[in-house]
Amino acid sequence: MKVFNYQTVNPEGVEGGASKVNVRRLITKDMGAKNFAMRLFEIETGGYSPLHTHAWEHEVFILEGEGVVFDGEKATSFKADDVVFVPSEERHQFRNTGRKQLKFLCLIPNEK
Amino acid sequence: MKVFNYQTVNPEGVEGGASKVNVRRLITKDMGAKNFAMRLFEIETGGYSPLHTHAWEHEVFILEGEGVVFDGEKATSFKADDVVFVPSEERHQFRNTGRKQLKFLCLIPNEK
Repeated sequence: MKVFNYQTVNPEGVEGGASKVNVRRLITKDMGAKNFAMRLFEIETGGYSPLHTHAWEHEVFILEGEGVVFDGEKATSFKADDVVFVPSEERHQFRNTGRKQLKFLCLIPNEK
Repeated sequence: MKVFNYQTVNPEGVEGGASKVNVRRLITKDMGAKNFAMRLFEIETGGYSPLHTHAWEHEVFILEGEGVVFDGEKATSFKADDVVFVPSEERHQFRNTGRKQLKFLCLIPNEK
């Protein structure tokens, strides 16, 4: 088994319609996790992930900060200790609307 | 999509070799999460999960507190902000060795 602090995994910038977003790929297929991947996202104040749709679901836990998840029409607020489930094929965008960094875990299935 | 505080999901006691452990089943197959499940565990001081082995992996993020993960021979310490990956078929037990509640997310694949 492996035990490590999340900060030992370097953040990577996120492109493709994102602003002020980093991702740390904490648990990966390369590590032997064949079914799903754990990533930690950090979004600075005013930043956002792309507004997009895809076949894979998101299982999200908000660690710090606050923001909204936008579905193209409606924005739903969240804050630390909230859970967000985005089903397959639902449009979504995460936005940091708070004054400090937004930090959340986002898990996705691995491609078969 | 769904957004909710984790505390809105009631804790259930855990039996079968566990002591002082509750689980909140945050994201489930019933909710439409077909690939994997998000659960939040709370272990009181001195409590532990069963020492056991199974085919499914664990992807864990420590939210609060501290403890060790024991593999039957060796105990490895962890604390808040640590990631623990337990591969398929590796023996493991989570123990709260701290003075306050241990709280962590533990995600597992759903049965096909």
